[in-house]
Parts: sequence; structure tokens; C-alpha cells
Amino acid sequence: MRDDGGMRPGAHNAITDVDGIRVGHTTRDEPGWLTGTTVVVPPTGTVAGVDVRGGGPGTRESDLLDPANTVDAVDAVVLSGGSAFGLGSADGVADAVWEDGRGWPVGAGADERVPIVPAAIVFDLGRGGHWRHHPGPSDGAGAYHAATDGPVLQGSVGAGTGARAGGLRGGVGSASTVLDSGAVVAALVVVNAVGSPLTADGHLLGASWTLLEDHAPLPEPHPDAVAAHWVARQAELEALRAGTATTLAVVATDASLGKAACRRLATVSHDGMARALSPVHTAFDGDTVYALSTGARPTPEALDLVALHDAAARSVTRAIVRALLAATSVDRSADGGLVAASWREAVTAVR
Amino acid sequence: MRDDGGMRPGAHNAITDVDGIRVGHTTRDEPGWLTGTTVVVPPTGTVAGVDVRGGGPGTRESDLLDPANTVDAVDAVVLSGGSAFGLGSADGVADAVWEDGRGWPVGAGADERVPIVPAAIVFDLGRGGHWRHHPGPSDGAGAYHAATDGPVLQGSVGAGTGARAGGLRGGVGSASTVLDSGAVVAALVVVNAVGSPLTADGHLLGASWTLLEDHAPLPEPHPDAVAAHWVARQAELEALRAGTATTLAVVATDASLGKAACRRLATVSHDGMARALSPVHTAFDGDTVYALSTGARPTPEALDLVALHDAAARSVTRAIVRALLAATSVDRSADGGLVAASWREAVTAVR
Repeated sequence: MRDDGGMRPGAHNAITDVDGIRVGHTTRDEPGWLTGTTVVVPPTGTVAGVDVRGGGPGTRESDLLDPANTVDAVDAVVLSGGSAFGLGSADGVADAVWEDGRGWPVGAGADERVPIVPAAIVFDLGRGGHWRHHPGPSDGAGAYHAATDGPVLQGSVGAGTGARAGGLRGGVGSASTVLDSGAVVAALVVVNAVGSPLTADGHLLGASWTLLEDHAPLPEPHPDAVAAHWVARQAELEALRAGTATTLAVVATDASLGKAACRRLATVSHDGMARALSPVHTAFDGDTVYALSTGARPTPEALDLVALHDAAARSVTRAIVRALLAATSVDRSADGGLVAASWREAVTAVR
Repeated sequence: MRDDGGMRPGAHNAITDVDGIRVGHTTRDEPGWLTGTTVVVPPTGTVAGVDVRGGGPGTRESDLLDPANTVDAVDAVVLSGGSAFGLGSADGVADAVWEDGRGWPVGAGADERVPIVPAAIVFDLGRGGHWRHHPGPSDGAGAYHAATDGPVLQGSVGAGTGARAGGLRGGVGSASTVLDSGAVVAALVVVNAVGSPLTADGHLLGASWTLLEDHAPLPEPHPDAVAAHWVARQAELEALRAGTATTLAVVATDASLGKAACRRLATVSHDGMARALSPVHTAFDGDTVYALSTGARPTPEALDLVALHDAAARSVTRAIVRALLAATSVDRSADGGLVAASWREAVTAVR
């Protein structure tokens, strides 16, 4: 039985169902490239927290988000491919934010603003063929300017372009939940995990947590295809290096939360990864969750807070499943790079 | 299909399968009492880490376990009922440890030793009838002296005596895994969660993660009984207060890990809670995991470390399922206290 907790998604079933949240992607999948950047742009005054739980993270501005520190509003959150090099994509977002008239005011002049742009990366270097082909400032700025509050492109786009998950193609996914209180909580993920998103018999681990609206009926895995997948998976695991995987999430709500409560929301949201990926949060992953509160609705208390936490974790699981379903197979072997099948192709096609 | 990751348990399927680890309980279930203490006693020199992820923890010596701090060996880990009052049970363990000739040496004299006894509590006050009936130093000492390396008593014993989980009776559970490398990793849990251990249709959430050896075939939930459970559950939730729930775990391995690696093992092990309880790590829970390394076997690297992390999280999920299956129904309504059915009784008996 589907364990949906009685929940329903919003209109887009995406993070843009939280009023004022916009999402943009830059996808670099031309020859020699397989990477990209995704930017989440919240309304002015949005409070944020972060919880870094993977053993190999790559981030900027996490210290600023510590509840003990001063700044409590962010202008954008950048998720990017390119490993540590990809952190440079946030430079372009910082400039774009400032040019838009945003940023933390630090002086009397209207220009005296500092853009607050936390960022986290996934490893995808060399997967498109060239180790030095990674997103930079112009890719970040492009994603920022492309941001809309409409449906969110999912699958092999943006920061998920070069992503893998347990030997399958990873990607970007999103899902939203409308709570009984009327508040909305939603997630956007980039799935690039060392762990597998599959049960032993090839089903998606997180599928029992999804809502009816999250996806069309799923194909039944073919035992021979699943067996072949696990053989290939073992070879991949044996070539594993630390820091070459990471699942990222941005969780957003219109409920009012302070900085510390945003961090708690980020912490609980990591449980959504545990239900869709196994193992996760290992020494090889840099798993990081950002939580954003736009503050349009009241502060949830007691049971409403439990419901918000519950829905946030479930939204992350659902977004991971949707990322894997939206991802497309890719073959860059001619370019010395990534070969990865989508879940659907890997478990149904016997090759 | 059972997703067992190809794993097998050790001889006791308990934390005592890690060589040198002993467990003892004090159970206070006489009239007016429903609480207790569980003590895990590792061999001398065992390294430890902790990861506190619930929003309402009650602990002692967590700061000492920070990888940046000096002491890296623990003498015992105390899990106790009694909420903040129950932290006093560790006083008796500290004395017993010292009398046994153990403790961190701080001087030239043989007596100049400081016992290192981290402790964490679960809330159970008032459930046995009397708010002020909680474990104290003599209960801690009793559990310490009762510790053996044999089979571990599970269910409604020790720190799990007054435990609830999602409106059912919680308790103590344990499970172990023997890895391909020969290393053993195992968990002991005390389940007292605000979240539910059930799927919507009344199955145990974590049951798809268990091994064949973990339990006998499970009864099929009766729809009327499950419906009645959810009605009662809603009433319970509405009476919820912060800090009245917590799931605790001790994860132990004979693989050699430093203090920081123990903390990473504790972090990953929290994922095992996410697969058996929903929601978990909320503002109402004080969820805490200790990780212990006895160091009898080599330090795992690369894939062996991933396998250890994976098995640790799975052992926690399995231990939670075993706790719920071993727990027995209790009715202390005459004493103004807890009424809680075991999972088996709640989902099969229509009342």
C-alpha cells in the first residue's frame, strides 16, 4: 500500500509552488561537456538554514547560515556541477543579485549591499570528457536570469546534467506538499549518490513514499536486466573515490521559521534521502540540505510543526524518485566520459 | 522482496556479537514505576563518537566526544528512562566503572582515574503513575553489574520499559551484521518516538529492511484494528508536548575507527531511524546515536567503509523492528499512567 501520509501536491508539484520561489537551470551538454548549474531564487527576506551531513561536501557560505551568526536572509541558493571548481558559478549569481538591487545592506548608500548566495556542488568532473569543463560565473548568472516561478524542468538538466546515482543516471527532481494548515513545503534535489536508489529486485526504494500525482504507473523490473545492473554496479563501486558523490536538496516553505528552525527543517529533510537512497551520508557523499522560509504564513507550532517536518522529508524522497524517473540515458563513451542508463531503461531493457 | 543487502547477523543477532561488548538492564516495572536503565559496557580502550540529531535531547558527556576534544575512550554508555532526572543513573555507573579499575588516567596514582560515561535519556515521566519515579544511581549501577556478553533481553526492559512509539509500546531492540570482511557491526536501540513505526495500512515501516533471521513471519494487520489505531493515534498526537519522545541507539563495531570516524558512523546510523519511523528527528524527539569502535580488526577503507556504514544504518532499522516485536502490551490506567498496546496486538485485535 502506498504510504502517502494523506498528503497532496501543489499545482506544479515543485518547489515553485511556494509563492515567490523561482528556479532556473543552465545545462551544459554540448560535446565535451556534461554539467550545469541550478539556481533557486527566493523572495527578498527569505530566511535560510543548512545541514551538511555527507562526509565530502563542497560548499560556500555555510558558516554564515549558522544560527549563531548574524545574517538571516539569502538572495539565492546555487547548486552546481563541477565539484570544487563549480563553486565559481556562485560568483556570477552574486553579481546578478547585486545588479537586481538585492543583497544584505551594509552601508548608507543604495549600492552598499552584499549578495548572500550559499552554494553547494556535486562531483561530475570528467564525465563529459574534459576534466576542466565545469560551470563558471556565466553559467550561474545564466541560471539566475532563466529562473521562473512556473513548472520546474527535471531530469538531466542544470546541476543534475552530469549526475549519477548508484550506477544510473541521476538528475534534478522536485515535489511539493500542501499541508492541512494551507502552508506549502516543497523540495528540489540533485541526485548524485554513491548509494543505490534501488531495492534488490530493481524497484525504486522511494517509490512506496510517493503520491499518486508524482508519476505515471511504473514498469515492472525485468529480473535479467536487474541482475545485469547489479553486476555493472559492483564494478563501478570498486572504482569509487571519496568525494565523487553527493545529493543536494533545497527545501522551501511559506511557513514562518527563524534561522534555527530552518536548520532543524534541513536536518529532518535529510531523512527523505535515507528513504530513497542506500547507503547515503557516507564518507564519499557531500550530502547537504538547505531550508528556506519565505515567511508568508504563520509560524507553525506543536502538531503543525511535526506535519511540516514530516512533509519536508517526504517531499525530498518524492523529489528523488521524480529525478530518477525524469533522467534520460546518456552515452558519452566516444568522448571518454559517462555512460549511464536511466532507471527505466536499466531495469527493463535486457542488453 | 526483502531488501537485505545480502547481509547476515551474528550468533546473538545483537550488539553483544561485537567481541567484548556487554549489555545490562535495570527494569523498574513494579507498581507506580514504569522506567529503567540500560548500560552498554565496551572493552577498555573503545573509541566513541556521538551524533545528536533530535530537537529535544537530554545527554551528558557529548562535548567530550567532539572529535576536536581530547578523550577518545569511553568506559560505558548509559541509556535511561526518566528524562533529565534519569541522567543521574550515570552517576552510579561512573562509581562502578571506577571501582572496576577503569577510567581515563589523569595522574600517577592507580586511583587517579576519571570514568568516562556518556549518557542519554528518553522521556517516560508519569507513565508509570508517579512523575518523580525515575531511575537513579543505583539503577545505573545495577544495570552495569548485570551486563553480560550473551543474548540481549529486548522489548519492555531497561530504558525501554516506559517507552512508546507512535502510540504503541516502544522498547529495546538489537541486531547485528557480519560483513564480508569479517568485521561485525551491530546496534542496540531504545524506541520512544513521536513518529509512527507503521505504514498507513499497519505494517511495520522497517520490515522491508529486516533479515530472515530477525523475526518470525509477521501477522497481517486487520483493517478495522488499523483504523482504530489511527483514530487513537490522532488523539495522542494532539496532546503532544515537546521533549516527550526520543529514539536512542548505540552502534558498535570491531573495525578500528578514530573518534571522527565514529562520529561519521553515528551520523550515517541515524538513517536507520528514518527507515523505521516517520517522522523522526523532529523538534519533539531527542534522537541520539553513539558509535563505538573496539578496534579489534583493521581500519576499513573505501568500499569496506561504505559497507560498514550501510550495515550500521540497516542494523538500526532492524533493531527498531525487533524492539517493537519484542515489546508487550501494558495497562497502567489504574495507576494514572501508560496504556499502550504492542504492535502485534494493536493491529490484529479488534476491540
